[in-house]
Amino acid sequence: MAMPKGAQVFPRSEYLRRLSAVRSEMERREVEALVVTTPANITYLSGYTSKSGYVPQGLVVSLKDEEPTFITRRMDSPAAIHQMFIDRNQVIGYPEALIANPDLDGYDVIIDFILDKGLDRKGIGLETKFLPASTVEKFKSRAAGAKIVDCTNAVTWIRGVKSDLEIAMMREAAAISDGGMLRAKEVIGAGVREADASAEIIATLVRGANGKPGTDVASFFLCSTPRTSTCHIRWTEEVFQQGSQVNLELSGVRHGYTCPLMRTMSVGKPSDHIRRLHEGEVAGLEAALAAAKTGKTCSDVAIAFNTALKKHGFEKESRCGYAVGIDWTEPTASLKEGDATILKPNMTFHLMLGNWIDEDVGYVISETFRVTDAGGEPFTKVPRELFEV
Amino acid sequence: MAMPKGAQVFPRSEYLRRLSAVRSEMERREVEALVVTTPANITYLSGYTSKSGYVPQGLVVSLKDEEPTFITRRMDSPAAIHQMFIDRNQVIGYPEALIANPDLDGYDVIIDFILDKGLDRKGIGLETKFLPASTVEKFKSRAAGAKIVDCTNAVTWIRGVKSDLEIAMMREAAAISDGGMLRAKEVIGAGVREADASAEIIATLVRGANGKPGTDVASFFLCSTPRTSTCHIRWTEEVFQQGSQVNLELSGVRHGYTCPLMRTMSVGKPSDHIRRLHEGEVAGLEAALAAAKTGKTCSDVAIAFNTALKKHGFEKESRCGYAVGIDWTEPTASLKEGDATILKPNMTFHLMLGNWIDEDVGYVISETFRVTDAGGEPFTKVPRELFEV
Repeated sequence: MAMPKGAQVFPRSEYLRRLSAVRSEMERREVEALVVTTPANITYLSGYTSKSGYVPQGLVVSLKDEEPTFITRRMDSPAAIHQMFIDRNQVIGYPEALIANPDLDGYDVIIDFILDKGLDRKGIGLETKFLPASTVEKFKSRAAGAKIVDCTNAVTWIRGVKSDLEIAMMREAAAISDGGMLRAKEVIGAGVREADASAEIIATLVRGANGKPGTDVASFFLCSTPRTSTCHIRWTEEVFQQGSQVNLELSGVRHGYTCPLMRTMSVGKPSDHIRRLHEGEVAGLEAALAAAKTGKTCSDVAIAFNTALKKHGFEKESRCGYAVGIDWTEPTASLKEGDATILKPNMTFHLMLGNWIDEDVGYVISETFRVTDAGGEPFTKVPRELFEV
Repeated sequence: MAMPKGAQVFPRSEYLRRLSAVRSEMERREVEALVVTTPANITYLSGYTSKSGYVPQGLVVSLKDEEPTFITRRMDSPAAIHQMFIDRNQVIGYPEALIANPDLDGYDVIIDFILDKGLDRKGIGLETKFLPASTVEKFKSRAAGAKIVDCTNAVTWIRGVKSDLEIAMMREAAAISDGGMLRAKEVIGAGVREADASAEIIATLVRGANGKPGTDVASFFLCSTPRTSTCHIRWTEEVFQQGSQVNLELSGVRHGYTCPLMRTMSVGKPSDHIRRLHEGEVAGLEAALAAAKTGKTCSDVAIAFNTALKKHGFEKESRCGYAVGIDWTEPTASLKEGDATILKPNMTFHLMLGNWIDEDVGYVISETFRVTDAGGEPFTKVPRELFEV
C-alpha cells in the first residue's frame, strides 16, 4: 500500500505563491536550479517538518517545473510523500549505501538529478553558508558547465514577510507559548527541582492550547540563580531556593512555526535592582513596539528601545531582536542600530530583551510581534510582569 | 560578583586525560593548535553543554598549554566559566558587534588569538566538514603562515572509546530511557492524542530516574499508523486507534550523554507480519550483541545481524547501528558490512534495527550497548517485546 498524503498544513495555492516568489529571485540571480538545503526553507516551500536534515537532502526548485523535487535518504521519502504538498513522484529517495560513505553521498544524487535534467547550463543556486566546503567544491567540479551562485538566505529573506495564513499559524504557536509561561508561574517555587518544573512546562508546550497541540519541542532555557547571567543552559539538577531568580525562554511550535517568549520570575521578592531593570526594559519594549511601524527600519526600533532603556539608567549590549518564524531565528534582519532593513507589514520579530549585564546580573523579557502600519503587534498575551512566585 | 564554578560532571583528571589523547593526535598530524567547533567535542573536552553553538565559537587546544581556551560570544562566557573545568581566564568572550555582522565574526577572534599566541607557524587543525566554506577560506588567508589541516572527526574518533566514568554516565541516561519507554507503554492507547502521550513521555525523560534528572530533551520520534514507514516525524495531531502501531525512538540525557532506545507498540493485537518481523529482528539483535566482542569489526556485527534476520525471511537496507555518546550519533564507525573498525572495550553503539521496509511497513527495535570481551552489553533493561497496549 502506498503512503497516503497527510493533512496539509497550508493549501497548495500558498506553496505555489511562495515558490513563485522564489522563482522571481532565481531569475534575478540568473539561476535555473536552486538547491534548498536549509531545513526551515524546505519546510517553507513544501510543508515538510520531518527531522532528516542531519544527512544530505535538497529541495530542487527549477524555473520550468511548477513543483520542486525533493531528494532525500530512501528511509525518509515516505515522510516526504506524507507531509509535502508535491506529487509523490517528485520525491526521490537515494540508497542507504550513500550514508557514512566517504566517496559518494546524497549531494551526488542531487548533482546527478541536475545534470540529467539539463539544469547545469546557466547558474545553480546553493545555500553555500550552510554547506560543508567539500560539498560546494563537489558542485563546482561536477557541474562544471554551470556558474555556482551563492544563494545563502535568498529563500530566508523571502519568508521574512509572512502571509495571513502564516500569521494565523504563529498565533496558534503564541497561545501555546502563553500556556507554557503561565504553567511555569504555577510550578516554579522554593524546594522544587529545576528539572521537575521544566518537565511540567515542556509537557504543557507539547499538549498545546485551544485543542491544537504543539508539534515539536523548541529550544527551552531555564537559567536560575546563580546562573541568571547565562542564557543558553537548559536547566540544572538543583532546587529553587527562596530568593532564586528564574529566567525563562520558551516557545510553542505549530508545524515548524515558533513564537518565542521570555519572562523573569522571582521566588519571593525580587531585588530593587532587578525591579528597576524590569521597569526600564518594559519601557524599552513598549517604545520598540511603538516604533515598529511599516516603513521604519530595524535600526529605528533598536534606537527606540535603547533610548528608553537608557532613560532608566541601563544599557543592553546585544541586539534587541531578530526575524523569527519557522525553526525560530531567521538569520536575516536584526533589530540593531545600523540595520537598514525596512519594515513591511507581517514581518515578524522576536523582540528579545534578554540583558545579561554582568556575571551576577541577568534579566529577560521578550515578545514576538508582527509589523503593522500602527506598530508592532505582539502575538502573546502574558502580562509584562516580573512574576513573583 | 563573579560567576561561581558549577558542580563538575567529571574530575579534572578525566578532562586532562582526554586532552592528552587529543594532543598525541595533534602531534601525529603536525598541528600546534586545534580549533574544536563541534559542540559535542567541546562538551567532551570541557564539560560545557550550554547551547551556544548556533553562533561561532571554538575551543582552542594547543600543544603547550595544559588547559584549552574557549572563545565564545560574550553573553555565553558566564555559562562557560560555570560549566567548564578550565580556569575562568581561559574563557574569552567576543563582543556582540560580531553577531550578524557580514564583515567580521567570532572566527576572526579565534584567528586573532592563534596569531597572537604565535600558533600559526606549523599546522592549524580545523574540523572543516562542519564549517562553512567561507570560514575555512578565512583561516587560510588570515593564517597564511600555517598549513590548515583537516581534523574533521579527529576528536570524535578519540571519544569513541569511553572511560568508566563515561560508561557510568551512559548508564544513568539508560535508566531514564527505560523509564520513558515504560511510561510510553502506560500512556499509549486507543483514543489518546499522539501529542498527549508524547507530552507524558517527554516529561518522564526530563524528570529522570533514580533521583537523577534528564539534563536535556533529546530527539524524540513517535511514528504511528499510517506513518510506520517513516522514521523522523515527531508526532502528529491525530489520535491512536484500535489497531494502531506505534514506533518509538527516545533517549534520556545526562550531561550530554545519550542512550537511545527504540521499541514498537501495538494498540491491540499486532499483525502476524509484524510479529514475524519482530521475531526476526530480536534474533538479529541477539546475534549482533553476541558478535560485538573486543577484536571483532563493525562489519562482523552487521553480518551477524543480517544473517540472523535473513534466516527469518527479512532484510534491512540501512546500516544496523552507529557509534553513540554525547549528543547522540558520533559520525565515525557504522555497524555495516564493510566497516573495518576494530571493536575496543567500552566503545558504545546504538544497535539501531529500525526497518522501514515499504511505504506501509516499518518496525523498530534498538538497544545501546558497550563492547566487552564477552560481547555487546546493553545499557537498557526494557524487555525485547513487541508491546501490546
